[in-house]
This record gives sequence, structure tokens and C-alpha cells, in this order.
Amino acid sequence: MSDTVSRTELSALGEFGLIERIASRIQITQKSSVKGIGDDAAVIDPQGLHQVITTDMLVEGVHFDLSYVPLKHLGYKAIVVNLSDVYAMNATPKQVTVALAMSNRFPVEAVDELYEGMLFACKEYGVDIVGGDTCSSTSGLIISITAIGAVEKENITYRSGAKENDLLVVSGDLGGAYMGLQILEREKAVFKSAPSAQPDLGGHDYILERQLKPEARKDVIAMLAELELLPSAMIDISDGLASEAMHLAHKSSLGIRIYEEKIPMDPTTINTARDFNLDPTTCALNGGEDYELLFTIAQSDYDKVKGSPHFTVIGHMTDKASGYQLVDKQGGQHELKAQGWDAFLKK
Amino acid sequence: MSDTVSRTELSALGEFGLIERIASRIQITQKSSVKGIGDDAAVIDPQGLHQVITTDMLVEGVHFDLSYVPLKHLGYKAIVVNLSDVYAMNATPKQVTVALAMSNRFPVEAVDELYEGMLFACKEYGVDIVGGDTCSSTSGLIISITAIGAVEKENITYRSGAKENDLLVVSGDLGGAYMGLQILEREKAVFKSAPSAQPDLGGHDYILERQLKPEARKDVIAMLAELELLPSAMIDISDGLASEAMHLAHKSSLGIRIYEEKIPMDPTTINTARDFNLDPTTCALNGGEDYELLFTIAQSDYDKVKGSPHFTVIGHMTDKASGYQLVDKQGGQHELKAQGWDAFLKK
Repeated sequence: MSDTVSRTELSALGEFGLIERIASRIQITQKSSVKGIGDDAAVIDPQGLHQVITTDMLVEGVHFDLSYVPLKHLGYKAIVVNLSDVYAMNATPKQVTVALAMSNRFPVEAVDELYEGMLFACKEYGVDIVGGDTCSSTSGLIISITAIGAVEKENITYRSGAKENDLLVVSGDLGGAYMGLQILEREKAVFKSAPSAQPDLGGHDYILERQLKPEARKDVIAMLAELELLPSAMIDISDGLASEAMHLAHKSSLGIRIYEEKIPMDPTTINTARDFNLDPTTCALNGGEDYELLFTIAQSDYDKVKGSPHFTVIGHMTDKASGYQLVDKQGGQHELKAQGWDAFLKK
Repeated sequence: MSDTVSRTELSALGEFGLIERIASRIQITQKSSVKGIGDDAAVIDPQGLHQVITTDMLVEGVHFDLSYVPLKHLGYKAIVVNLSDVYAMNATPKQVTVALAMSNRFPVEAVDELYEGMLFACKEYGVDIVGGDTCSSTSGLIISITAIGAVEKENITYRSGAKENDLLVVSGDLGGAYMGLQILEREKAVFKSAPSAQPDLGGHDYILERQLKPEARKDVIAMLAELELLPSAMIDISDGLASEAMHLAHKSSLGIRIYEEKIPMDPTTINTARDFNLDPTTCALNGGEDYELLFTIAQSDYDKVKGSPHFTVIGHMTDKASGYQLVDKQGGQHELKAQGWDAFLKK
């Protein structure tokens, strides 16, 4: 971007002009991408693999707030959250399509920034943008992304494959993205009441990055392959640990038991939660947007994850009748509840 | 739908409740659909075929007007316009994913109606809804659909494959959907000035159906296979004949010549255009939304389409230097221009 602020109206380019501008920046890097943007549809060569496909829609004012989310970060995150769903199937993402609707308040430069973020994510994760649609909206920005991945049939991990007594394992740490959001919302409120105030974001780098520039656990899929560890079930954590654990248990027709003291959290997350008078465990259970992977493994595979800094065993699968349980630090047992994140209740 | 008008708020069901309600109505019918809604991603078995993928986004107030488009029709059309892109690759659509954003002014019953139309289209075309996303919007309804199709590698028809002297062929007739839209817009204007007036839609059934319930040319793909006719290039007509013909010529690095007198139009379209003081040819060239297929064939294949009520030869491909030409009924030659449909200029 140049230092001088320039503004080109979308109407000056027109739909086809904009598509050409976007297409000129996109390169095809994957062998399976036979044909990208520029025909009625993209063409994919599955190369003998099964394909997984997932779609997510992000709506301004519902899923993101442009008053504190830079467009470049938004583009990055929009891609990453879709790839996370592909990894949750133990598949490798290869292609995405991008549909954008945006009001005329956005200049062409805004589209450029958004695509810069998306293309950066695509480069990081080895994914091609092979298609899309760009149109105007009557209000705001809407991004709909579809991701395609490839996987050998026998390596697909469904939510439904967990067995009784399997260990419940989570990657990384939880609750950080939610606490990052609390910091951003607090500073937005401060800014509204005193626009000349500088935002106080110091010391919160880790959780701000968890919120603004989350990563999908590509590395976890690679580690699992290297460990020759095929999870019996897997799901990604987009809506909070509680909700996702219950999905996994429900689909596997089992109960689940999670130990509060085992839930991995970063010290920044814990300290920030306390600053906000929030219970850190509640943030991990219900916060959402962490994009970690939650999976189950046979007890006989325990040695493969034992001592790994990337994986934490947080519980195990029980029989269905035992229900969904959280064991607190004092050993008390509570019914696990998903407050989750509900798009229709939030507004 | 029952006769009593009921209204259930989206917030009463919540996001997961709504997803479950939708999922319960969806059945998987295609062998290639290994896993549908209910996991992090859907799973497709390509069965040795190449896959094509295409995405379209429809925005209320830009692409459709709910004051005269019933939700059931909108759902049907939203699916069909995507399938049309799959057919244009000479592929067979197999799966779709559906992402919806809608404001709280829509009750659950509106989602039901929309899905009723989508599921009806899916049944008609032998397609499974395998995934999706449903969330709230701050205003209006946005529908983003991604369609996946399957095709043998050697049968894919790109826009770029046309050869000089190939014949240019179009299916069906053109301009009808645009004239249907004019009728609907006229009656909306009448209704606004006199709300008690009954809409005057008589005698326009054909063009109204072209606009409100368009069909994708599944039958054309079947006919081409039966005729053992592989087009050298193909595109679907969503933005008007002129624009699509120029895309095809541009991608094939050729010129194109279209004969006005050959352009197939239904008498209802011609008569309605005249009633509106519009040139019928202009409506066919620039009207859009006809979803017919435009393709090129070698001259040696002419006998395969000759006399068919489904196909009309409307011109041929020329060398690039000859440009894009329209020959009028008096033999005069004009440069073909695409006024096309431009989402950013319309509003």
C-alpha cells in the first residue's frame, strides 16, 4: 500500500473490472487445481483422494466489527476458520472459493486489503483461490468462503467415531481468543467515550493475536501423521470447548468427562480473565474462536501424545448414560453446559 | 404450509436448533455424497471423476426483490443458477452447500419456505445439500451457494476451446427472463401507486416463469451426450448473449459473428418487448438470466444439431482480428457490445 490514501469507487471498476483485478493477483500452486478463476466453474483433479467441503459465512456487525478488525486480518481469519474445519476431518485443504458482497462505502482499496489477507493465508496454508463471486450489498460486508480438502478415505476423522474409554485430547490452549475480544471491546468503549485516548493493548499480544489472526492447526495434522496416530474422532473448537465436546460425544452416542484442572490455558488468558472478573475456565469452555483441534484416541495410543507440548489429555469418553460431565478442581462433578456462541441470540 | 399464518422467531430456535430443523429435512441421494450435514465438513467420493466447483451469492435488494419473488421460488432459483454453471462445464451437479444470512425480520417459517424451494430444485436435478451455514444478518437476506459437479476429464468444456469457423449454437430462446422482470417491475410500480389494484400478469406466463422459476439445461447436457457431441467451448447465459459470447470469444482468442435474425426468441418475449417500446434483439443480447447454454461445435458436427427444436445456430467463430460482430437483419455489420448486467452499477 502506498502512503497516500487513495480511494477508488467500486463503480469505477465495475463487477468485471473488479474480478479481473482480483484474478490478476491470484496464482494457482496446487497440482489438483486444474482450472481456477475464469470459467463457469473451477476444475479439481481429486487424484484418487476423497474430497471434503465446508462453507462459512461472515457478516459485518455479527461476526466482526471493522472498527477494530483491520481488513487484512479479517481476510486472513476468514480463510483460516474454513481451513480449520478441513483439518478437523484430518484432510489437507487445497482450494477455496470466495464470495463477497460489499456496500459502496468500501473502495477498491478495501477489497485489495481484504484479498491481501486472504492471499497471505492461502500462501501460508498452501491453498488456491479457484473461484468466487463479487457483488454489491445494500449494507456492510459479507464474506462466504467454501474450502475443499483432500484425504485418503481411510484417514477421515468424523465426529462420530469415538469409543468408550477413549482419551479426549486438545491441541494448544483455550480461551485466549475470547479474552482478546474482551480487550478489543473494552478499548472500543473507551474510544467511544474519549476519542483522543490511545488504546491500552499492552501486554496482551498473545490473546489479541489469537482473536485477530488465529491459525488453523495444519501442524497438528502433520504431527498426527508423523506419530502414525489416527484419532477415532475429531472436531475443531470454534464455539468453545464445552459445545464442541458435547457435539463429539453426541455424534458418537457416548458420554464425556472433562477435568477442569487439565484444561490448557495460557497465563495471559488466565490473568486477563481475572482482570475482567471472569472465571478463566468459563472462558475456555464457552469462549470460542480458538480453532484448536479436539480429538479422541484409544488408550493404547496414550504414549504417542504423552509429554507433548502440543497436546493435552483433558478427559475421556464414558457410556452415554453418564452424560456430559465436568469435574472441578475440588473433585466435584457438574453437568457440562454449552452456552456456546449463537448467532441469533447475540444481536 | 398450514392455512393459519404462524410466526416463529429465529431466536426461539437458535442457530443449532435451526440447523437441526433444516438437517432433518435433507436426505442424501447421491452415491458420491459420503457424508452430508453434521460434521466439520461434508465428504465426497469423486469416483474417479474430475470435480467442478462454482459459487454464487444472491443479495436481497440487489439480485432479488422479495416484494414480488416468493421465497420458495427464490430458493429454487438460487440452486438452479449455480447448477447452470456446472452444466456449462458439461459436468453433472451432485452436491451443493448453502450459506444463509438473514435478519430477524424473517421468521422460521420463511427459512422453511426458502428450503422447500431449494430442496425441490435439488430433487429435480438429483443434487444433495451436503453442508452449509446459517447466521443472522444486520439487514436482509443473503444466500451463498456452492455447487459441485462431476465430469470425465476428457469431457470438460472450457470457454477457451473454440476454434476458428466453429459454429455458435444456443439452446432454447433468449430475452424472456428479462421481459418477465419488466412485467414484475411494472406491476410493483402500479401496486405502489394503487395498493388495491390487482396485478395484471395475464398472458405472460412463459416469461414470468423464465424470471421466477428458471431451469438449468440438464436436458441439454444429456442430449449432447446422446448425440455424442462434445462442444469445443461452452458457457451459460446468465448476463445476456452479447456478454457471454464475448467472454467465450475472448477466452478462445477469437472473433465472433452473430446473426440477429437467427437469435431465438419466444413470441411472448417479442410482443412484450414491443409493448414496452424495447427492441427485442437488445433484450436477448443484454437481458440476462436466461440460463441457456451457448456453445461452439465443429462445422463437421452441424448435422447433429440441424433441425433440432432445442438448438439454434446463431453465428460462428472468426479470427481474432475480425472482432465481435453482430450482423443485423438488413445485413449491416455492428460491433457487438455488452451492456451486460453489472452488480455495482445497478444500484
